[in-house]
Amino acid sequence: MKALEEKIIRDGHVAKGDILKVDSFLNHQIDVKFMNEIGKEFKRLYADKQIDKILTIEASGIGIACITAQYFDVPVVFAKKTKTKNIYGDVYTSKVESFTHGTTYDIILSKEFLKKGEKVLIIDDFLAKGNALIGLIDLVKNANAEIVGAGIVIEKAFQDGGKRVREDYGVNVESLARIKSMSYEKGIEFTN
Amino acid sequence: MKALEEKIIRDGHVAKGDILKVDSFLNHQIDVKFMNEIGKEFKRLYADKQIDKILTIEASGIGIACITAQYFDVPVVFAKKTKTKNIYGDVYTSKVESFTHGTTYDIILSKEFLKKGEKVLIIDDFLAKGNALIGLIDLVKNANAEIVGAGIVIEKAFQDGGKRVREDYGVNVESLARIKSMSYEKGIEFTN
Repeated sequence: MKALEEKIIRDGHVAKGDILKVDSFLNHQIDVKFMNEIGKEFKRLYADKQIDKILTIEASGIGIACITAQYFDVPVVFAKKTKTKNIYGDVYTSKVESFTHGTTYDIILSKEFLKKGEKVLIIDDFLAKGNALIGLIDLVKNANAEIVGAGIVIEKAFQDGGKRVREDYGVNVESLARIKSMSYEKGIEFTN
Repeated sequence: MKALEEKIIRDGHVAKGDILKVDSFLNHQIDVKFMNEIGKEFKRLYADKQIDKILTIEASGIGIACITAQYFDVPVVFAKKTKTKNIYGDVYTSKVESFTHGTTYDIILSKEFLKKGEKVLIIDDFLAKGNALIGLIDLVKNANAEIVGAGIVIEKAFQDGGKRVREDYGVNVESLARIKSMSYEKGIEFTN
């Protein structure tokens, strides 16, 4: 998505330690008008598919998922991160390893909100090592629901998450911007 | 908001321990179409006010804030909950006591995304004891920005948060449903 690549170059930057900062429009401040363009693009990419529900994970996926859900006319359900398993009663759980924080946490989803056979589109802001996305895929499988695919705003294509999810899990992933390389010194390069 | 009261009665319930469960449409699964009605109502209530930015707090406030922001045509910024203060560099911080979890946490907001003089509408899903809302008010004051008011989906009017924010802090609070009393045995009663 050309407009997204331009937005990342214009409003984002690579901080020291080669960290991509897009918190001016994606994951701290949210440019809601631009998220509408993101939502329309996900709809275009999955236009011919039946989608019953959009699944995401707290926190920064929620805004994108809600805006996107308007174009599919479906509800959103978000997995919650927790260290205290099963406090919510009857839930699906999965473990996610956090690269950023060096910890492992559980994600939970109430069984009430994901039923057998439901067709699910997973939406998230980032795909890097793929752990959060694989956790969500795991929840959908536990529910015997059907994963139609995933929609990711920014994929760090130089990490192996995309390959894991596409090849090992056989899930279709549409990423609106795929970063081939990035560094504080040289900036950002995209790939298709 | 009559439609919201009806929705709470129809899709919500009071669980044992007198806990209001509205996670079928508000804070786990999100009825995005209904959130559009919520967003329109906030716009109606603040139609004559200049709003530059909507402020909320992760996680369940984000979806409502993003949908609402479409009607104001402004960006959203969400405060993050953290136990590790200042890891994000140049941030405003405030402390929030969590009644639900029996803990105190810091909320942070990058100084970059809230500037002096900006006119802020605070949006959140719940108002009970008011600690989260007061934490957000504190962030806005630290930024020397201006609080136009708050928009709350559900206020537990039998708790003192609304009184604290309106009287002690002088902030206008518009709550779309105000619960006068609720219990597992007797259900939910609303007030104006």
